[in-house]
Amino acid sequence: MTLQVFTTGGTIDKVYFDANSEFQVGDSAISEIFREANVSVTYHVESLMRKDSLDITDADRQLIVEAVRKSTAERILITHGTDTMPQTAAALKAITGKTIVLTGAMQPARLRFTDAIFNIGFAAAVIQTLLPGVYIAMNGQVFEAGKVRKNRQAGRFEAL
Amino acid sequence: MTLQVFTTGGTIDKVYFDANSEFQVGDSAISEIFREANVSVTYHVESLMRKDSLDITDADRQLIVEAVRKSTAERILITHGTDTMPQTAAALKAITGKTIVLTGAMQPARLRFTDAIFNIGFAAAVIQTLLPGVYIAMNGQVFEAGKVRKNRQAGRFEAL
Amino acid sequence: MTLQVFTTGGTIDKVYFDANSEFQVGDSAISEIFREANVSVTYHVESLMRKDSLDITDADRQLIVEAVRKSTAERILITHGTDTMPQTAAALKAITGKTIVLTGAMQPARLRFTDAIFNIGFAAAVIQTLLPGVYIAMNGQVFEAGKVRKNRQAGRFEAL
Amino acid sequence: MTLQVFTTGGTIDKVYFDANSEFQVGDSAISEIFREANVSVTYHVESLMRKDSLDITDADRQLIVEAVRKSTAERILITHGTDTMPQTAAALKAITGKTIVLTGAMQPARLRFTDAIFNIGFAAAVIQTLLPGVYIAMNGQVFEAGKVRKNRQAGRFEAL
Repeated sequence: MTLQVFTTGGTIDKVYFDANSEFQVGDSAISEIFREANVSVTYHVESLMRKDSLDITDADRQLIVEAVRKSTAERILITHGTDTMPQTAAALKAITGKTIVLTGAMQPARLRFTDAIFNIGFAAAVIQTLLPGVYIAMNGQVFEAGKVRKNRQAGRFEAL
Repeated sequence: MTLQVFTTGGTIDKVYFDANSEFQVGDSAISEIFREANVSVTYHVESLMRKDSLDITDADRQLIVEAVRKSTAERILITHGTDTMPQTAAALKAITGKTIVLTGAMQPARLRFTDAIFNIGFAAAVIQTLLPGVYIAMNGQVFEAGKVRKNRQAGRFEAL
Repeated sequence: MTLQVFTTGGTIDKVYFDANSEFQVGDSAISEIFREANVSVTYHVESLMRKDSLDITDADRQLIVEAVRKSTAERILITHGTDTMPQTAAALKAITGKTIVLTGAMQPARLRFTDAIFNIGFAAAVIQTLLPGVYIAMNGQVFEAGKVRKNRQAGRFEAL
Repeated sequence: MTLQVFTTGGTIDKVYFDANSEFQVGDSAISEIFREANVSVTYHVESLMRKDSLDITDADRQLIVEAVRKSTAERILITHGTDTMPQTAAALKAITGKTIVLTGAMQPARLRFTDAIFNIGFAAAVIQTLLPGVYIAMNGQVFEAGKVRKNRQAGRFEAL
């Protein structure tokens, strides 16, 4: 089994740049997380874009869909900002025959306390165990694309 | 869906006691990990024992099997030392109708670098997505009970 | 010996707010750092403001000077953003008879990798060992107020 | 100013070895801590031994004293296990004309929560600011050699 990981940015990959006193999307933390967990399945990581998900346009979303469609992998993990993760998941429903899982984090992976590492671990299992379809893996739960929203106030994902 | 978590000790829960200059099994880190990940499924954590898995006897193993059998939960996550995790998994095969997942860590959860958090996240997904059976979730992979061993030299689990 | 700590904000205390996808100054991390290090000298922590140091005005700076002047403590540690730390240090030179040390961080204290904890430890020693005067403690060095600048490009403080 | 660092082992450098399910003294964490803090003074790190301080013999102690004596550096930081740190400090009083500071940790530097990084920062300042003499830097305090003990029960150092 080979896992294809596409990264698109979002909170999970935010790093702090002292030079401009702000957090911006940096190198993806996912390869480091996989190494730290000594993951022994084969995986490939590719960065598609580095965007806050509020800045992801329809064109960006189409680019993500095309990358997933063209990939020879049948199991694809996508890291993505949480704010528009449900929209991207909905767009990916056009693809059939692949298990596609989106995850992200409410707190950057590089914080001492973060949900990122748990979420990546969780999503890495979902992608290996579920049948083809599009899923969001957040808050220790699996949600089906199109039936999930981010409750911004509560800071978590909820089934619709 | 309700998750029952039983903790039995092992490296994952080792803490450092300065008083005797050694690591021993301490309070389980799992509740903290679930909170940090803002897990929104219902879960209960219960400590069955606090043992290095090399010290787990047949009687201890029987106690674990009984606790799982008596539990009303259908999805049960067990944290366990890695050295004899395959033996405990094999013993649990006597139970049918429940999804039972064992996980642990090569490095204590309280280290700055650890596989524990990823593994807990991974196992938390396996337990929700797989049909009844007994599984070991380690190194980003799912292994069936009875078909897995720890390769101590390589520091990882492998399918038999 | 009693240490007075005044916090003013800056990178050291930045936390990530998912709700607006950005880092802002949060609760000061300094009490937590002191507890984690099991510091056994008496200390008091008081927040004067929560500002990026680029936003600290002359009026803010005057407020800091007054707080230091009015304090009955003779040894005062100030956490401050790095960009205008030299200016605030210079303003504090108006005060005599107290040992005043400013420190901060290039990376927030709540990151897994950060210079904040080392810097707080370093500054906590400088404040106890040096004679009255105003100092900046950064990059494992002590700089005198008025004789130091931040080299923004190199990401470190340098003696003038 | 050049800092010479000698490492001797102790809790601060303990790492977890899964192969034998225990913590042992590993590579010193001090270089990593200095890099993470972007320390810009010149420093050299040399490992003299890797021992739990309860295992440090009189011969080991003599070896440490000789290394300090032969060093051309005038400011020498020693990382050391806490249990017999006061004895080694006392032995070092035979040396004059150098500022010698011993520090260590109650919790390994590689834990997510540790006093090691603060202590190293604290000691790195003490060594630069104090006159020749032998000191222990622990719990955010400076103790003179010969006038300090570890209160094992309370888990901290105290002045005699």
